[in-house]
Amino acid sequence: MQLAPGFSYAAIPAGIKAGDKLDMALIYAPQGAYGAAAFTTSQVKAAPVLLSQKHLELSGGNLSAILVNSGNANACTGAAGEELARNSARWLSDALGIAPVETLIASTGVIGVPLNPKLIEAGIARLSSSLSTSEEAFAAVSEAIMTTDIVAKRKSFSREIGGSTLSFSGISKGSGMISPRMATFLGFIMTDAPISSATAKIALDAIGFSSFNALTVDGDTSTNDTFVIMASKEQAHNTELAAKLNDPSSSEHKALLEAFYELALYLSEAVARDGEGATKLLRVVVTGAANSDDAKKIAFTIAESPLVKTAIFGADANWGRVAAAAGRAGVDFDSSKLGVEFASILTCHNGQAVAFSEEEALLALSQDEVDIHVILGEREAKPDDFASAFSLRPNEGVAGVMTCDFSYDYVRINGEYRS
Amino acid sequence: MQLAPGFSYAAIPAGIKAGDKLDMALIYAPQGAYGAAAFTTSQVKAAPVLLSQKHLELSGGNLSAILVNSGNANACTGAAGEELARNSARWLSDALGIAPVETLIASTGVIGVPLNPKLIEAGIARLSSSLSTSEEAFAAVSEAIMTTDIVAKRKSFSREIGGSTLSFSGISKGSGMISPRMATFLGFIMTDAPISSATAKIALDAIGFSSFNALTVDGDTSTNDTFVIMASKEQAHNTELAAKLNDPSSSEHKALLEAFYELALYLSEAVARDGEGATKLLRVVVTGAANSDDAKKIAFTIAESPLVKTAIFGADANWGRVAAAAGRAGVDFDSSKLGVEFASILTCHNGQAVAFSEEEALLALSQDEVDIHVILGEREAKPDDFASAFSLRPNEGVAGVMTCDFSYDYVRINGEYRS
Repeated sequence: MQLAPGFSYAAIPAGIKAGDKLDMALIYAPQGAYGAAAFTTSQVKAAPVLLSQKHLELSGGNLSAILVNSGNANACTGAAGEELARNSARWLSDALGIAPVETLIASTGVIGVPLNPKLIEAGIARLSSSLSTSEEAFAAVSEAIMTTDIVAKRKSFSREIGGSTLSFSGISKGSGMISPRMATFLGFIMTDAPISSATAKIALDAIGFSSFNALTVDGDTSTNDTFVIMASKEQAHNTELAAKLNDPSSSEHKALLEAFYELALYLSEAVARDGEGATKLLRVVVTGAANSDDAKKIAFTIAESPLVKTAIFGADANWGRVAAAAGRAGVDFDSSKLGVEFASILTCHNGQAVAFSEEEALLALSQDEVDIHVILGEREAKPDDFASAFSLRPNEGVAGVMTCDFSYDYVRINGEYRS
Repeated sequence: MQLAPGFSYAAIPAGIKAGDKLDMALIYAPQGAYGAAAFTTSQVKAAPVLLSQKHLELSGGNLSAILVNSGNANACTGAAGEELARNSARWLSDALGIAPVETLIASTGVIGVPLNPKLIEAGIARLSSSLSTSEEAFAAVSEAIMTTDIVAKRKSFSREIGGSTLSFSGISKGSGMISPRMATFLGFIMTDAPISSATAKIALDAIGFSSFNALTVDGDTSTNDTFVIMASKEQAHNTELAAKLNDPSSSEHKALLEAFYELALYLSEAVARDGEGATKLLRVVVTGAANSDDAKKIAFTIAESPLVKTAIFGADANWGRVAAAAGRAGVDFDSSKLGVEFASILTCHNGQAVAFSEEEALLALSQDEVDIHVILGEREAKPDDFASAFSLRPNEGVAGVMTCDFSYDYVRINGEYRS
């Protein structure tokens, strides 16, 4: 695994979570970095989200460090929570010798519980003195940001673009309270691609539709969603490459976006796979809608339907529930043209049942991954409609959403745990 | 129990459900009746819904009979399903000697499975020859329309209005796929109040906001929702009373609406109580919003949040989840003025935690009924804001929604049963 050069990492058990678990992390670009970020659209925004939004605006996308803690969201914590977020940035800027506005803060965990400033202050001192460029440190950061996640989510790869080798490393977390829509869970992409903040923003806007904005576990958008792209200055000397990457009409720019998208898709899908209580990854793809926004609306309604999610848990090809969910999505369509496939098995055509093997369906729905394909008749079908759903640019009228099933364990986890 | 005069009832096991269960019912007004109905707003409407809408329009609100079957929704059943709905009305009109347009058809049960016309034709013959005005027959109808319901839902009462005794009888069903919004589950109100179809329509529109349009079990709006008000001609000779009841400015009209509302609230709340897997009735009341539609939107988002519903199942006063759900409702509000009460226990004030007894909260949330009260600061509070939520006319900025918790049994019922 080739980590993106220009970043160092640290993670520690700061004492926020019980039991000496990793719960605080630092991502640092010693030479600075350019970046962009998307945040939750919730009306109830956590203090670190509000501060990070302000910092990004003031710094014009100049980023040096991201401080993350898990176990406490620092949300609904009033003036004390806001002061802590400000102080955290100040402590970090003192420790690293950078401007406070070059820092972003992300928190995740329980809402409405005061976060102890002493733990954060001491944690920052320890983090800033234990930074490392090692893969172990990168892995430790991916673990330190987990809450109810079972699996740590990280990936790195390199790609030849414009004659240079560029690297991309990403981390995400999320398991419950996941429905990012116009923002996201926690996700961080680090790269040494020599790009401007503006290009990072273009990439962030381009990759979201079919990755982190196509993800839901339970429909519950979080107060703390944050997704960051951070580009180090490791290859900034390569001004020729930088010019190409920053030019939206170049093939290098397109290749860059594809690389970002691939990583964002992986990091988002990993969250759906690890959804609270999930036994299966469920992909809902809608094709043939009047436009892709309509398709997305229908796909989200199906993906968040408790009746559909429990049917998938029970390996039941219950297309009637899919049809009912599509019908209530608030989108006009002709129900007499509706088609529904479960794992490529056609169960409903032109709005009514078609014969299918229940045995075959049971087997297909008992796999770790299940696709539901809803076909509307509002546009002519193209051969690659289905495949285009999870790509940088889905065909018009096509959208996909990633989610998981609804199991007994979802109820157990959330009926017992205050998060 | 005084049933509303002017109606007779019949219910039989027609063989649609397995095991000789009651599954077909008839409500009949021999002298005719005036009425109004609301239907599902789903894009995927069952054949009987489409036919009933047409009949109501053609008959101008002259209703004589409602045929209901459970066990099969006759939805997504194509041309054969439409033909069956038409034939059902014809068979019924032949048997009763009424016009086909005076009939409404309502079906509930599994979607996408052909319904056997022979069962319906034979059932109509048996139903029309076994009509009765008895309480037993009325009760049997309330049982025959059940699907996953555990409890049959019916209520009757009389009220002195304008010097006369008027009676109101109601039936409803519903347990899963419940989120009526602008229409509803199955609900039928019968009365001998001498009113016109226009007044029935006014009443239907007036009572919905805080009763059947304030109800959700799982957010899944059904393909078959139907709510009917049917007024017999038993007291039609009392033209003086009729004139008063049909005059929207009279006190009698207002008393009539209150009676309809009381019954509709009971029938709706009974569905929330009997929601699939429910262990508790949950009422979410939002006060202090800019307007009541905003309040309703927030209340629905909280009431449908899987994280809130599982917390209530676990008797956990997890107000952070309530705040997060409010924040993602798509309504602007000042989160620094947000307050949250569980069963009158204040847990959050001005957007942050307040100390409360966890023990007391555990006890309060372990009851059969739990109220969540969300206070926004967008309007000045009135003393009766909370109480007005479930009334015919909530205060401006106030709305309530009825739902239930999310338990292991919800997953069991819906992971195993194809409905």
